[in-house]
Amino acid sequence: MAKKSRAKAIYVLNGPNLNLLGTREPDVYGRTTLSDIGDMTAARAQSHGYDVVFSQSNHEGELVEWIHEAREAAAGIIINAGAYTHTSIAIHDALRALSCPIVEVHLSNTFAREEFRHHSYISPVASGVIVGFGANSYLLAVDAVASLIEEAAI
Amino acid sequence: MAKKSRAKAIYVLNGPNLNLLGTREPDVYGRTTLSDIGDMTAARAQSHGYDVVFSQSNHEGELVEWIHEAREAAAGIIINAGAYTHTSIAIHDALRALSCPIVEVHLSNTFAREEFRHHSYISPVASGVIVGFGANSYLLAVDAVASLIEEAAI
Amino acid sequence: MAKKSRAKAIYVLNGPNLNLLGTREPDVYGRTTLSDIGDMTAARAQSHGYDVVFSQSNHEGELVEWIHEAREAAAGIIINAGAYTHTSIAIHDALRALSCPIVEVHLSNTFAREEFRHHSYISPVASGVIVGFGANSYLLAVDAVASLIEEAAI
Amino acid sequence: MAKKSRAKAIYVLNGPNLNLLGTREPDVYGRTTLSDIGDMTAARAQSHGYDVVFSQSNHEGELVEWIHEAREAAAGIIINAGAYTHTSIAIHDALRALSCPIVEVHLSNTFAREEFRHHSYISPVASGVIVGFGANSYLLAVDAVASLIEEAAI
Amino acid sequence: MAKKSRAKAIYVLNGPNLNLLGTREPDVYGRTTLSDIGDMTAARAQSHGYDVVFSQSNHEGELVEWIHEAREAAAGIIINAGAYTHTSIAIHDALRALSCPIVEVHLSNTFAREEFRHHSYISPVASGVIVGFGANSYLLAVDAVASLIEEAAI
Amino acid sequence: MAKKSRAKAIYVLNGPNLNLLGTREPDVYGRTTLSDIGDMTAARAQSHGYDVVFSQSNHEGELVEWIHEAREAAAGIIINAGAYTHTSIAIHDALRALSCPIVEVHLSNTFAREEFRHHSYISPVASGVIVGFGANSYLLAVDAVASLIEEAAI
Amino acid sequence: MAKKSRAKAIYVLNGPNLNLLGTREPDVYGRTTLSDIGDMTAARAQSHGYDVVFSQSNHEGELVEWIHEAREAAAGIIINAGAYTHTSIAIHDALRALSCPIVEVHLSNTFAREEFRHHSYISPVASGVIVGFGANSYLLAVDAVASLIEEAAI
Amino acid sequence: MAKKSRAKAIYVLNGPNLNLLGTREPDVYGRTTLSDIGDMTAARAQSHGYDVVFSQSNHEGELVEWIHEAREAAAGIIINAGAYTHTSIAIHDALRALSCPIVEVHLSNTFAREEFRHHSYISPVASGVIVGFGANSYLLAVDAVASLIEEAAI
Amino acid sequence: MAKKSRAKAIYVLNGPNLNLLGTREPDVYGRTTLSDIGDMTAARAQSHGYDVVFSQSNHEGELVEWIHEAREAAAGIIINAGAYTHTSIAIHDALRALSCPIVEVHLSNTFAREEFRHHSYISPVASGVIVGFGANSYLLAVDAVASLIEEAAI
Amino acid sequence: MAKKSRAKAIYVLNGPNLNLLGTREPDVYGRTTLSDIGDMTAARAQSHGYDVVFSQSNHEGELVEWIHEAREAAAGIIINAGAYTHTSIAIHDALRALSCPIVEVHLSNTFAREEFRHHSYISPVASGVIVGFGANSYLLAVDAVASLIEEAAI
Amino acid sequence: MAKKSRAKAIYVLNGPNLNLLGTREPDVYGRTTLSDIGDMTAARAQSHGYDVVFSQSNHEGELVEWIHEAREAAAGIIINAGAYTHTSIAIHDALRALSCPIVEVHLSNTFAREEFRHHSYISPVASGVIVGFGANSYLLAVDAVASLIEEAAI
Amino acid sequence: MAKKSRAKAIYVLNGPNLNLLGTREPDVYGRTTLSDIGDMTAARAQSHGYDVVFSQSNHEGELVEWIHEAREAAAGIIINAGAYTHTSIAIHDALRALSCPIVEVHLSNTFAREEFRHHSYISPVASGVIVGFGANSYLLAVDAVASLIEEAAI
Repeated sequence: MAKKSRAKAIYVLNGPNLNLLGTREPDVYGRTTLSDIGDMTAARAQSHGYDVVFSQSNHEGELVEWIHEAREAAAGIIINAGAYTHTSIAIHDALRALSCPIVEVHLSNTFAREEFRHHSYISPVASGVIVGFGANSYLLAVDAVASLIEEAAI
Repeated sequence: MAKKSRAKAIYVLNGPNLNLLGTREPDVYGRTTLSDIGDMTAARAQSHGYDVVFSQSNHEGELVEWIHEAREAAAGIIINAGAYTHTSIAIHDALRALSCPIVEVHLSNTFAREEFRHHSYISPVASGVIVGFGANSYLLAVDAVASLIEEAAI
Repeated sequence: MAKKSRAKAIYVLNGPNLNLLGTREPDVYGRTTLSDIGDMTAARAQSHGYDVVFSQSNHEGELVEWIHEAREAAAGIIINAGAYTHTSIAIHDALRALSCPIVEVHLSNTFAREEFRHHSYISPVASGVIVGFGANSYLLAVDAVASLIEEAAI
Repeated sequence: MAKKSRAKAIYVLNGPNLNLLGTREPDVYGRTTLSDIGDMTAARAQSHGYDVVFSQSNHEGELVEWIHEAREAAAGIIINAGAYTHTSIAIHDALRALSCPIVEVHLSNTFAREEFRHHSYISPVASGVIVGFGANSYLLAVDAVASLIEEAAI
Repeated sequence: MAKKSRAKAIYVLNGPNLNLLGTREPDVYGRTTLSDIGDMTAARAQSHGYDVVFSQSNHEGELVEWIHEAREAAAGIIINAGAYTHTSIAIHDALRALSCPIVEVHLSNTFAREEFRHHSYISPVASGVIVGFGANSYLLAVDAVASLIEEAAI
Repeated sequence: MAKKSRAKAIYVLNGPNLNLLGTREPDVYGRTTLSDIGDMTAARAQSHGYDVVFSQSNHEGELVEWIHEAREAAAGIIINAGAYTHTSIAIHDALRALSCPIVEVHLSNTFAREEFRHHSYISPVASGVIVGFGANSYLLAVDAVASLIEEAAI
Repeated sequence: MAKKSRAKAIYVLNGPNLNLLGTREPDVYGRTTLSDIGDMTAARAQSHGYDVVFSQSNHEGELVEWIHEAREAAAGIIINAGAYTHTSIAIHDALRALSCPIVEVHLSNTFAREEFRHHSYISPVASGVIVGFGANSYLLAVDAVASLIEEAAI
Repeated sequence: MAKKSRAKAIYVLNGPNLNLLGTREPDVYGRTTLSDIGDMTAARAQSHGYDVVFSQSNHEGELVEWIHEAREAAAGIIINAGAYTHTSIAIHDALRALSCPIVEVHLSNTFAREEFRHHSYISPVASGVIVGFGANSYLLAVDAVASLIEEAAI
Repeated sequence: MAKKSRAKAIYVLNGPNLNLLGTREPDVYGRTTLSDIGDMTAARAQSHGYDVVFSQSNHEGELVEWIHEAREAAAGIIINAGAYTHTSIAIHDALRALSCPIVEVHLSNTFAREEFRHHSYISPVASGVIVGFGANSYLLAVDAVASLIEEAAI
Repeated sequence: MAKKSRAKAIYVLNGPNLNLLGTREPDVYGRTTLSDIGDMTAARAQSHGYDVVFSQSNHEGELVEWIHEAREAAAGIIINAGAYTHTSIAIHDALRALSCPIVEVHLSNTFAREEFRHHSYISPVASGVIVGFGANSYLLAVDAVASLIEEAAI
Repeated sequence: MAKKSRAKAIYVLNGPNLNLLGTREPDVYGRTTLSDIGDMTAARAQSHGYDVVFSQSNHEGELVEWIHEAREAAAGIIINAGAYTHTSIAIHDALRALSCPIVEVHLSNTFAREEFRHHSYISPVASGVIVGFGANSYLLAVDAVASLIEEAAI
Repeated sequence: MAKKSRAKAIYVLNGPNLNLLGTREPDVYGRTTLSDIGDMTAARAQSHGYDVVFSQSNHEGELVEWIHEAREAAAGIIINAGAYTHTSIAIHDALRALSCPIVEVHLSNTFAREEFRHHSYISPVASGVIVGFGANSYLLAVDAVASLIEEAAI
């Protein structure tokens, strides 16, 4: 049924400026667009038997609300909160209310960049963190979240 | 007249994730829903002769705008800004533009939780602060704000 | 019997310099004296069915000992530790040994004053905190502590 | 053509609470309204041969999106991000993706105010900064951005 | 009359461990006893036409209470709060309630000793500070406080 | 003679809240009472040929004065200053005036508890420190102080 | 008359190393010399009806003295204190004694450079700050200071 | 040839205490042994066409030397430096001398543990970081490093 | 049997530079050699019915491995990790994997020395800490660890 | 003879901006001029049998050189280094080379002003410090330095 | 010719208080005078074929100007900026404008002295640093700067 | 004799990763190998009449032990502890036990690199420090240590 199949979805949430991907600072973030990543992610999730709900917002509040929605609808969450990673306690709180696995991803190696990108409010409430592999970070995250869902199901 | 009666309203503004109340981390926040609190608050305000405008938003900007609206429409403000308490200078600035009494409330005792919840950008611009009494924090705040309105009227 | 009725008492403990109330810096603390507050507090507690034991000391050690005494004798505690709020781990430790509800109060909004008044050793061991409403802080605290006693009794 | 003329526009973006200008804390910010500033700015830009796109938002995400839009449409940007100046890495990131000149402005002298207004996430990605001249800050910024556009065109 | 003559008194208050003077760490504090200082101070005050009330306590609360008493009884205060200088907000608060001149003294040069002796809670509420002249610090303080009383009387 | 035998005494000084021992937070501090510890300590000291003067106070000033008294009367000092360990420069100064051995003890492992219990103003002026062995900390301290007295006597 | 015409002068003060302008690190500071800037500044000031007194010193004390001189002689001050911006409380104090408008300028964007160039002792006592527009910073400052003089004259 | 095939090896280096895996704090690190992980890792690498050189040492110097060896012999490195992650600049320096891809892994979510585990000297010199997926962290790392080797080969 | 008797052993582990004892800075550490301490410790342990395994290493990794070995072989551990006390998270982690009692010892009073010796990574995972009694620290530690073993056996 | 009488001189050195005294911020510093203070100081010194060498400079280097000169020529030094108090290690070093008494003075209570005026590089090398008594600070300093010279002469 | 031979000069610049050398704190700085060092330095430079321009100033601005002069005239610079090492960004900036080798020297080991002498604004812009060898620091610096000049000439 | 000639040796100790010299980051460290430096150093030492014992280790413990060995065998020590410079208190302690001269060297200018390379645990216990001259740092250090040995011999 609809409900069960919805529970099979993996939510992939993307934060501010990620819509520019492929055009903004390509030496840092590469030339792949967010839409490309959406497609690759969906394909990889499919191979694990999951649908993907892939979205991007520049609004902290909208990301919070999608996380709320995921409480019912998602089997797992992959989140690249962009700049909100470092400033949003609201997203931290929203994620704490989830019981499904949460994987934090970043395209670039945030630890090799400015000091203010070294702290994440998301990491302490995530199951795990994958950082620095470009678009491949998302594919690894799909594999990781799929494993976590299986483990939790046992 | 309408305008005068509107001026009798107490604005009760609620920040991000408070819409989850009653379901999120019930051991920290209890099982009462935000809607329950809205009802209790309205009843208590009524006993002091005030209407209540009760709202919740996950958007920092929306909270800012409701505070702007309150400049004309509110006799007093009760605000639980949730996570934005600790990060929002924008809300701080909006509140500074008010001349009516402001009471900051929190359901849980923020001082007994993580270090990053100990600082509030709202406290220095509030008249007073009530923290840690669960839903009762709101009722105490209604009593407090009502007193402050009376005092100011003298 | 004596013992039972003693258990009905709410301890209201006041720290250093509060005996000057009504004379010291009236623009910060108002003109109500501590004795006035004692009377108002007793009246409000009476309305909830409790006696009040109201005391003030400039001695950290004496406050510690009254808290020890309260372990047996009090149904709840309201404490305004004045300057010791910010420096006394001894009072923090004494309060931790209590099982009854504890409400921290302050007359002025400590968060709008000097940096060194922003940290409280009492808040993390209190049930809740009420700050900035002048003498009314005490009345709200009586209401709050009465509710907490009722809840605990259920 | 349309496109070329659009490229002549200078974007002037205003952050949270600036819509209150002229009413909020007039001793700090003066009595000129934001609409007045919009008119003055347009007139001055006209004298340099540029149109102005003048907007205000209380939403961090909306400011981010206007900056995205400016990547194609603007010859230069003037930004007064208000409170978001001090907290928004998202706006910092959006501005970094621009190749046109960026001028940060503030009405009041932020360095003479609270400590938390001394750091700006916008300054390091701006071409230059103009602070403290009231509405005149905007006019100076128009002159400055016009010069930068000319220089870049050489 | 008694009252008038009492108002002529200069209070000289000494904090913890100063009763050991002359025996404790003589290379730091010298061999003069506190009683010797009391005598010298009284003589010097006499030459300005003032009595001296000279006391020492190891109890923070007692010092607070003597300061309260001084509100009525003293024309000026000289205070060497010893170790409480660096830790007592209670004494800071008590001194703030005084309207007569306050001179802080120290026997040794506290700025040439451990880091934790470099901050004083008393200095910001004192009229002036005299540090490092041994027993002579007290005599200079008597001269200083006498001048301040005269100036205030004009 | 009296004087000689007094000089044989080991002072064991206990700070705030230690009178609650055996009842306060037994999972942290155990169920042995302070009176039990007094007896055990006296017995162990006896085996080394020393009397014990065993006292407890919740007053910082009283602890300071007992240390003053110990300057003449004690062959060695064992001190568990409780919460004053972390805040009292007055006790630090009093101890510095002693020439006999000083052993600091704590029942619980203060280094495994809150950050604010990690710093001690007593440790730098103590001969040695014994932490975390419950009541046994005192017995080890008696052995330690007895050795130090013997060494000093050589 | 002499005096009146002197009062028409705008003082433009330049700090250490600015005499090297046009030769030192041209990628940071450009190739315009300080003498060029002097000429441009004088021309622009002339258009507002003001003379310019343009000077440079590598000596903190000399800058202090020129500011003293400006108290009588200047209608406004433009100051680029170079490295002393970040270290000189003496210049800060001298500027505080002025009643005419003060504009701080910098050629490069100091906020995009080393951490130790982010703090200015001049900003809090300036009317406004203009940073990062190369030689144009000075011209904008002339316009700004001229406006401030007019406003003050009203 | 031997040399070419050696260049196909992926070095998997493990730091102090990882030899205890499966026995130490199983609630934090799980029950899988390091030898199990070695087998799983080898199998996964085989599927990408790589051998694995899998080693563990409790000696910082030995890890440094294995990294030196890897300069010639490894196609990529996966490193879980355990506690040395947070303290070893020597390992940081050794890794900087490598030109092959480097993936940092951790079994547990280090960001959800003690403060001193939040900083890594390895992250800034790694290509990417994978944290918190238990033994699966290693498998994801094999996939990640294999992709990085392929990309670099293009 | 061998195994049982091995389980009776107390491990006494010594860190870097302790092999120099008796020669290095004798005014800080005394003239007793480490070998002397080994003998004294063995004798004292014998009196409690335990063998001692006494070792010293200048290698962090070797200390880690001896702690691993102690997991099976030791009834209790006494550790003076020397300089590694302040820098080794690896030893901290190894000790956390033990279930037997752990006593940290130091010869000198580390709290009366340089700031960088005030923090210990071992204290939070030790049962108790004994500091500052020279060689006697070890004897007290044997008594302490013997008591802890007895208590745990009950 | 000249030399002997020169040795009788007390050097009174004044730092930057003190030449403005009586005109700059009179509410902070009063209306007495530096020349007035010079006269008062000379008169008071005369009463102790000393000449005064009274100078002021806005140049750090000149103050350093006057202190060098004082090594031979002064019986004692009184220094109000103004803003250089808080920034000059050069003056600190120069003063350390003196063997005569040094008294630091300030007109205003620096501890009641901005944070950056709370630290003095002069205090740790001064004999004593006198702060906050306006022009009277200098007279008290003359008395103090005269006493110190007498004591040293014994 | 003059110009060429001038280009052979090595500038040796000395900061505040170094003129006292040989008399100030001889236990820290030794008894050799600055003039002695000038002679030794000149002799050593001669052996490498260079003249020496040896100067000392207590004025920050004068040191800045000598560095400006050195831009044309010096083949290399040796600088002991004394106290200005730790406070002067102006000297830092002046040195950055040089293209010849720069060697920072200190007579005493600044790292073994007060905390405020541990940071140098000169080190990051120097080629190399030589610290702690007394007068020999200068001779080593001559050798070092001569080598650097040769290398640069290749 | 053997012993005397051994005492003539200068120990030159090299820390982690220095074995890679000439291959690792040649733009930072140059192309000279450590073996080249060993030869140059030996030749220069020979010219002063000393043998050289030249060694490198990646193991902190081994460096500690070589320093122990040097207590008897070395006339002086030159140490480049590489990364351990910034982290090893164990090496600091070992060096403190030496009575011969100690010279710290670094190839690159550590003060111009990452923040974490600015602090050295070796500098405070070294006689002097030579930083930033590439291989020449070692030759200067040989000259320096030879002078120190001669001076000490006088």
